[in-house]
Amino acid sequence: MAAGAGNFFEDFRAGQVLHHAPPRTLTVGDAALYTALYGARFALQSSTEFARSLGFAESPLDDLLVFHTVFGKTVPEVSLNAIANLGYADCRFLKPVFAGDTLSARTEVLGSRENANRESGIVYVRSTGFNQRGEDVLTFARWVMVRKRTKEAEVPPAQVPALPQAVDAASLVLPVKAVLPSTLRRDTGGARFFDDFAKGQRFDHADGMTIEEAEHMIATRLYHNTARVHFNAHTERQGRFGKRIIYGGHVISVARALTYNGLDSALFVTGINAGRHVAPCFAGDTIYTWSEVVDKAQAASSNDWGFLRLRTVATKDRPCAEFPDKQADGTYDPTVILDLDYWVAVPRG
Amino acid sequence: MAAGAGNFFEDFRAGQVLHHAPPRTLTVGDAALYTALYGARFALQSSTEFARSLGFAESPLDDLLVFHTVFGKTVPEVSLNAIANLGYADCRFLKPVFAGDTLSARTEVLGSRENANRESGIVYVRSTGFNQRGEDVLTFARWVMVRKRTKEAEVPPAQVPALPQAVDAASLVLPVKAVLPSTLRRDTGGARFFDDFAKGQRFDHADGMTIEEAEHMIATRLYHNTARVHFNAHTERQGRFGKRIIYGGHVISVARALTYNGLDSALFVTGINAGRHVAPCFAGDTIYTWSEVVDKAQAASSNDWGFLRLRTVATKDRPCAEFPDKQADGTYDPTVILDLDYWVAVPRG
Amino acid sequence: MAAGAGNFFEDFRAGQVLHHAPPRTLTVGDAALYTALYGARFALQSSTEFARSLGFAESPLDDLLVFHTVFGKTVPEVSLNAIANLGYADCRFLKPVFAGDTLSARTEVLGSRENANRESGIVYVRSTGFNQRGEDVLTFARWVMVRKRTKEAEVPPAQVPALPQAVDAASLVLPVKAVLPSTLRRDTGGARFFDDFAKGQRFDHADGMTIEEAEHMIATRLYHNTARVHFNAHTERQGRFGKRIIYGGHVISVARALTYNGLDSALFVTGINAGRHVAPCFAGDTIYTWSEVVDKAQAASSNDWGFLRLRTVATKDRPCAEFPDKQADGTYDPTVILDLDYWVAVPRG
Repeated sequence: MAAGAGNFFEDFRAGQVLHHAPPRTLTVGDAALYTALYGARFALQSSTEFARSLGFAESPLDDLLVFHTVFGKTVPEVSLNAIANLGYADCRFLKPVFAGDTLSARTEVLGSRENANRESGIVYVRSTGFNQRGEDVLTFARWVMVRKRTKEAEVPPAQVPALPQAVDAASLVLPVKAVLPSTLRRDTGGARFFDDFAKGQRFDHADGMTIEEAEHMIATRLYHNTARVHFNAHTERQGRFGKRIIYGGHVISVARALTYNGLDSALFVTGINAGRHVAPCFAGDTIYTWSEVVDKAQAASSNDWGFLRLRTVATKDRPCAEFPDKQADGTYDPTVILDLDYWVAVPRG
Repeated sequence: MAAGAGNFFEDFRAGQVLHHAPPRTLTVGDAALYTALYGARFALQSSTEFARSLGFAESPLDDLLVFHTVFGKTVPEVSLNAIANLGYADCRFLKPVFAGDTLSARTEVLGSRENANRESGIVYVRSTGFNQRGEDVLTFARWVMVRKRTKEAEVPPAQVPALPQAVDAASLVLPVKAVLPSTLRRDTGGARFFDDFAKGQRFDHADGMTIEEAEHMIATRLYHNTARVHFNAHTERQGRFGKRIIYGGHVISVARALTYNGLDSALFVTGINAGRHVAPCFAGDTIYTWSEVVDKAQAASSNDWGFLRLRTVATKDRPCAEFPDKQADGTYDPTVILDLDYWVAVPRG
Repeated sequence: MAAGAGNFFEDFRAGQVLHHAPPRTLTVGDAALYTALYGARFALQSSTEFARSLGFAESPLDDLLVFHTVFGKTVPEVSLNAIANLGYADCRFLKPVFAGDTLSARTEVLGSRENANRESGIVYVRSTGFNQRGEDVLTFARWVMVRKRTKEAEVPPAQVPALPQAVDAASLVLPVKAVLPSTLRRDTGGARFFDDFAKGQRFDHADGMTIEEAEHMIATRLYHNTARVHFNAHTERQGRFGKRIIYGGHVISVARALTYNGLDSALFVTGINAGRHVAPCFAGDTIYTWSEVVDKAQAASSNDWGFLRLRTVATKDRPCAEFPDKQADGTYDPTVILDLDYWVAVPRG
């Protein structure tokens, strides 16, 4: 018998709740690997002393490490037979996660719609990660194109959920209330703080980072993400691209780490509005990024913090001094691989 | 002077006890790397909360991480001049190991027998790992073909120890007595529990995993394993295969991680009966696995746990839907690289 | 705007103090990665129990991990626009660093001198790492050739600091006073202790280790070192060598780990007199090493410890049985890539 075959399109029903195994305890070991894989330098996750000055007992784990861990948990039941991960919506980070916390995940099926060719369909789900105390730490919706086991299989009636275009700033959770002590401003890098940012401002993050096969597989296994396209060179040689595809979340983490140049005070990721993997990424590609400040919002719970809505665009093998983007005809510059719309929390400084 | 030249065949004497340096403290950092290198998802090692529910203070470290650490310690004195690692026998895991424990190892020479060509011989040893309290945590026998320093060197009379074909289930140590709470059944993955397994049952574990040079070297250094064939592309280019050979234990860990699909409740490895590295494994190879339930035994110390004797076969670049195996003429299918016979502990669930 | 462009030659002024962000808390996760990347086997860093027997609460972190962390912090402000890292002097390890400590760094500009071509110049700096209690843990001088932003830019008058040719043994800090218990002699490897070494003694460390792209990038990101030449295959394809260059400190750590064969009792690195990266190192190169005992000095603070001044030479793709070195004409054997002059602390044993 073949084990771990995963769900196919016809197996999903709106309202169904999927539980994902196993729970995963994250430690300082995972945090060190995260640093080693991406080189993230944000002060809050880099320095326990800095975190303490903001009232934490120690550094929270990187928000995206939490995201990848919860996402990875969902793969065996949600996207093992996925053709493509089509989009994210309404992703909110609800509570910081610390070394020693154990994360579990559940997924509710929001709806589904068969494709016209009857060979696959789109499944809409909301996944939620929670800690050992049962507290939700992260929630996000995503939609995925999933293969059918057989073309003939009966499927439920189409049901497409309404998902928000963006997370309302008022629903973002600011995980801290403390003022950043002025003596610690420079520990962030200190290039600029909340009041220094303006809508429309754009940053070329300058650095490029090349991704190796070993790196993205080490990362993706760390997240218990079992999607075959990332690990199996033997079958992917016959696949769509002739090679392994890098987990989209790996590219997101590379991009976030590169934004430190210019956005060093963006200490938390608090929400993801939308994310599009415009083109696949492969080992050997060099990732560059640029960002635009799309919106600003004062945090409701603290006068000393605000939220920036950012759009970060990642390219491969093209520096971003000219901000490669969508073109006049609505298609992207061919070097663009990621278009990520998200919220970060920034101290007033 | 050349340092660290290791022992040659003529240096080994039955009864001799070799001490291996240095001791090695394992931490959550090592555990995170183990996860990142293999993607193992067994609930006990993945979740501290799950481990607590079985009465542990925290997750024990992966049994095979303990094996590799003890094995690695023995390499400088036992197998630095090995031509081949021929086999394992009577491997028993005696006590769980936790982050913070320090492992040391000693090896007793059981016997030796020169080869007819007088250029090498087979050395039989038993290695034992023990923790900082002097408690044995692991013991195993192995036999290795080792070069002579010079063909003329005098050697001791042949002495071949009797080694068991398999570990008797009665001598296996079950490191836990607690019942798995029914609320945690699904946290293992929950595909099946002890009573759901039957002798002769076979599982195609479906997934394949490609190994990179950086990965197996990172792993093998983590284990302080200094065997030159794994690290030195410069000399291996002139070697038997023209390239670095992957540490056999790395393949065992990849195989074990892949068996999660189907055997997710196999929470402990408790013994290894025999292991054969049928063919060498190289970077770029994609590992697939299948397993057969060879035997079942009720645990003596708990009605709530049983032992499964498994045979896991790993192939390279061939999926295992057809269970590639030994052929009619006694030789293996050419894609088979590992044939591992071992015991796992499984809760009744 | 382009972010994180770094300082150019004309930006440096003698007396200027640069603060580096962010602080970095090192953990057992970083220590595990260090082991996995280099395979270092020195007993003090490998075993908490061994460290306790010398009076430490736990293992100090590897001295070179501390060096790389402090060095990495300085890159964004000191050497982002460096053409070459020319040398080190007067490097002293002042205090051991433990998992949980947070390291920060500051750099004083000692002087600078424009090159005749007016396109670049040499900047002399002293960088100091300190822990969360403000205690200095490491100090070193280095000089770097840095590009000018524009040839026309005005520069300060030339000012070249006097730097010592070597660290005086009397100024080395011995971080321990305890006698090595004789029962622990063999845990170091025990090949030889302080009194067994003699000036002029040479060791061929025998093993070779091949470096992969993923490995040096994982290491260098772990150190927050952002020098572009290590990470960006896309631009380096057009660069001087047509490929990424491995961080020189990575080669130093590989070399130090390889010296365990012969120098296993060299438990601490206490100072670096001088270091020359004779030739660049690239992924795929296999590193070999040999060492010479240049000097010996009794530790002032303990009769049970002494210092060895070592010269370790690393080659690529050439074993060191013949001790490849500087040649009669003063140039190096073409396989030599590193010539490191440093002090280690060794127990009398």
